[in-house]
Amino acid sequence: MIFTAKVVIKLRESILDPQGKTVENSLKSIGFSAILETRIGKYIELKIDAENEEDARILIENACVKLLANPVMENYSYSLEKSEKELV
Amino acid sequence: MIFTAKVVIKLRESILDPQGKTVENSLKSIGFSAILETRIGKYIELKIDAENEEDARILIENACVKLLANPVMENYSYSLEKSEKELV
Repeated sequence: MIFTAKVVIKLRESILDPQGKTVENSLKSIGFSAILETRIGKYIELKIDAENEEDARILIENACVKLLANPVMENYSYSLEKSEKELV
Repeated sequence: MIFTAKVVIKLRESILDPQGKTVENSLKSIGFSAILETRIGKYIELKIDAENEEDARILIENACVKLLANPVMENYSYSLEKSEKELV
């Protein structure tokens, strides 16, 4: 069964985000004064071949912990859904 | 009113994603053979001060088109929600 996992990796709230600050300043400098705060994270979409949803969940959590996210500085969250179309 | 916008910016399907491919290969090399495809995008969280949801939507769409996304290569999507806690 093919699942699509959508993973969002964000810096922890307490960690400074200079990239987000830069984008925030850029937005303000072109007139978006209503933007109060900007934080930037990563978005990763994975297609996973797994027997069932439980297996897919274990796999994706492992992948996040071992490679995708840095647990010291980052939090991850994900959503999992069955792919409608199978990969060829 | 303070809104939180969660913006996801993805490369268009037809555009090659070497960064995603690299992560995919890394995952495979540490044993995640069940991962079939990986694509990487950007995640941007913005806090917006707007009169109402409609205004916030217009602002965020403008910000995406003018600065955050490159419409030639990227698609953007976002969700908007009222912030529970007001910024101090």
